[in-house]
Amino acid sequence: MNRCGIFDSGIGGISVAKEILKANLFDEIIYYGDTARVPYGNKNESTIIRYSLEALEFLKNFDINFLVVACNTASAVAIEELRREASFPVLGVIEAGVEALKNEDKNSNILLVGTKRTIKSDKYQKLLKKRGFKNITSIATPLFVPLVEEGLLEGEITDKIFEMYFKNIDKEKIDIIILGCTHYPFLSKTFKKHFPNARLIHSGQAIVEMIKTTYNLPIKRESSIKLFSSDAPEEFKINAKKLIELKK
Amino acid sequence: MNRCGIFDSGIGGISVAKEILKANLFDEIIYYGDTARVPYGNKNESTIIRYSLEALEFLKNFDINFLVVACNTASAVAIEELRREASFPVLGVIEAGVEALKNEDKNSNILLVGTKRTIKSDKYQKLLKKRGFKNITSIATPLFVPLVEEGLLEGEITDKIFEMYFKNIDKEKIDIIILGCTHYPFLSKTFKKHFPNARLIHSGQAIVEMIKTTYNLPIKRESSIKLFSSDAPEEFKINAKKLIELKK
Repeated sequence: MNRCGIFDSGIGGISVAKEILKANLFDEIIYYGDTARVPYGNKNESTIIRYSLEALEFLKNFDINFLVVACNTASAVAIEELRREASFPVLGVIEAGVEALKNEDKNSNILLVGTKRTIKSDKYQKLLKKRGFKNITSIATPLFVPLVEEGLLEGEITDKIFEMYFKNIDKEKIDIIILGCTHYPFLSKTFKKHFPNARLIHSGQAIVEMIKTTYNLPIKRESSIKLFSSDAPEEFKINAKKLIELKK
Repeated sequence: MNRCGIFDSGIGGISVAKEILKANLFDEIIYYGDTARVPYGNKNESTIIRYSLEALEFLKNFDINFLVVACNTASAVAIEELRREASFPVLGVIEAGVEALKNEDKNSNILLVGTKRTIKSDKYQKLLKKRGFKNITSIATPLFVPLVEEGLLEGEITDKIFEMYFKNIDKEKIDIIILGCTHYPFLSKTFKKHFPNARLIHSGQAIVEMIKTTYNLPIKRESSIKLFSSDAPEEFKINAKKLIELKK
């Protein structure tokens, strides 16, 4: 039985879980959202590492044999510590996002957006440079998560906030945008409007691609998912199921 | 020795601590910000109660003999539980905010703004109705905290977000605005611009007034403050001290 644990600070990682579920890579997916302590993006590294290890301990109870870190912030600061404590593969959205660029021109203009902690960790930037990419602009966009949570996925306010964060960027010239936070794919339409020539890198799709090419997993006929959270589990299950069923 | 414990989910309650400190009501103030789990506003009631009781346990180590709950969300859902566990007075910002209206006309048009959890708890609204106020409009404004944290205290984006939240309100007719979140006093200038005729109720000033009139405390010559937080204590101390010294 192949069982994949997925964790995120909250509900955002459902965008990743959904892609893994659709790809039927595992018999079962166990999702854990640390909603009692969300968000991770503005907290200290040692705190994020502690929370990530606690999530791993929780998921180990389900005999998982694969772990996906769907939280960009945890991927940025806790992936090595998680690997040290796990006897199975641990895959983070950051590595997957960078892997998704393997066939891109090294001179591409890349825009990386994420939480303050993800951008400050320099993890994406280091991996991209190691792969030979030279033109990387990174911008922390902390208002995007509350915008998504308020349902402001497009419109005047969202446009103004995009203009504010990207005022010093020649938007036409951006070739690739790495959506470095699991909430951001919900803003895809606005990203495409402001950056007409950019390819958007979505963590969930990148993770699925990386699992398929790196690990020799048998294709299953149908995956199932179990949902857990550290706060308000019933409300969480209802909202997560809605997101999973949305445009599936 | 009179020692007052103050707690909030994060740094916002410093706006309350600062007023108490300035008023020299206690020999010492012990401030605890639960920054490892901030914000409380979108979390479940049982979780907020558990976090509040843990904050009380922490503050009891300092032999406090007064507790101020500077977090509106915790005041809304955990005040009774805190009183059950404390052998000293426990005062919340909500009761203080309502008390500050004791001389106002009962027909005043009151606008209450706060987090989703604070508004949904109905705590302010019930207390206001009990006091005889009839015209209360309450609106959850979850984007205001991230706006303050991004430093967008005024300007076009902030104005647009105000227009969005208050589009169904006759702004000229609002007499009183209860700033039901400790972050919101930082938006006072924008509130005054959009609501030219309103008196703003600030939790910190309301708490000081209520302590002065309700408890017979000897006036001290100078109060001191000690700062603690559950995440990144050094960074927290630096930022909190800056806020305390700001326009003191």
